[in-house]
Amino acid sequence: MKLSDRQEKIIDIVKENGPITGEHIADKLNLTRATLRPDLAILTMAGFLEARPRVGYFFTGKTGSELISDKIKTFQVHEFQQIPIIVKEDVSVYDAISAMFLEDVGTLFVVNDKSCLSGVLSRKDLLRASIGQQDLNAIAVHIIMTRMPNITVCRKDDLLLDAAQRLITKQIDALPVVKDTEDGLVVTGRITKTTITKAFVELGIDSHI
Amino acid sequence: MKLSDRQEKIIDIVKENGPITGEHIADKLNLTRATLRPDLAILTMAGFLEARPRVGYFFTGKTGSELISDKIKTFQVHEFQQIPIIVKEDVSVYDAISAMFLEDVGTLFVVNDKSCLSGVLSRKDLLRASIGQQDLNAIAVHIIMTRMPNITVCRKDDLLLDAAQRLITKQIDALPVVKDTEDGLVVTGRITKTTITKAFVELGIDSHI
Repeated sequence: MKLSDRQEKIIDIVKENGPITGEHIADKLNLTRATLRPDLAILTMAGFLEARPRVGYFFTGKTGSELISDKIKTFQVHEFQQIPIIVKEDVSVYDAISAMFLEDVGTLFVVNDKSCLSGVLSRKDLLRASIGQQDLNAIAVHIIMTRMPNITVCRKDDLLLDAAQRLITKQIDALPVVKDTEDGLVVTGRITKTTITKAFVELGIDSHI
Repeated sequence: MKLSDRQEKIIDIVKENGPITGEHIADKLNLTRATLRPDLAILTMAGFLEARPRVGYFFTGKTGSELISDKIKTFQVHEFQQIPIIVKEDVSVYDAISAMFLEDVGTLFVVNDKSCLSGVLSRKDLLRASIGQQDLNAIAVHIIMTRMPNITVCRKDDLLLDAAQRLITKQIDALPVVKDTEDGLVVTGRITKTTITKAFVELGIDSHI
């Protein structure tokens, strides 16, 4: 929403003098109250100003960002999730590293014999293992993986914003998108910092998400 | 910006019937043109509708996202950049991996003896080196690093959006923020997918960025 020069001026006047009546704003601009009516209506509806009967107009401090926040809160995980790369618990660390390079991902999800989530392997986990003096072909990933219940997950109907917050607060690179089943959690997708970076770029570039 | 029920109805009418005159919209709602005037003014100013003289109102297809895009385009790299972790060219791969764990970062920047940027080390580079059969204490990072001119950089006044796009298109995790000097590029910050994820979360949570 592009504001007109006059609307910008009104906001400045209210910022400095609020609460201030419509008449007083009109006086300061040498205009009539009637001329300003549409501008004041627009600024109030857009949330820049708040009008209180018998008091006048306040500046709300909202600068359109509420709208942004509202928009971001409509994004759900399933609209953005990517395909998960999955390995079995008995795969060797060497093969897991190979899978990571082959699939070009930063995180692998580990499943048990019921195909349910049992662990997560980050590049960091694999790097830590690989600087040890062990034979990477001889260690199975279940030895070094992060395991339940220390895995942070998300579900397809979660807000992308909540998933992004979990990545930041837990200091992890990826979340498995899971579905609850009788046997445990089935992995159906992944949300990574790359996913969030892509969403940010789309928000910035594409005006029609 | 919260639209009223009547404004939502107007948008629906214009979506379906546009281009349509104000009178015809008023007819469909059993209201007078005068009653609708403020609503039409607001919807036009907010960018939902476009008015063409002698033709009528169109639906623009803009749903407030332009505002988001405009807002994101005000974010500059220097407002979000984090501290860069830097190592020298002759540091061993083993020590670089230790520095990465110690500082808890995903990317290290390598500088030459003039303290200017000469390379970048990602977790992926270090992981690749560490699964080789070499002694990690015996290899210097300049052997395995990605080097100029294959390094993608950004500058403090660049748009955060442009930096985010470079991360996606180049498929990298971090960009050094650099300053041009006579000797070369001096690293003053870093922008990572974590930086962008944090900016996304702030946009979504904080209404007053």
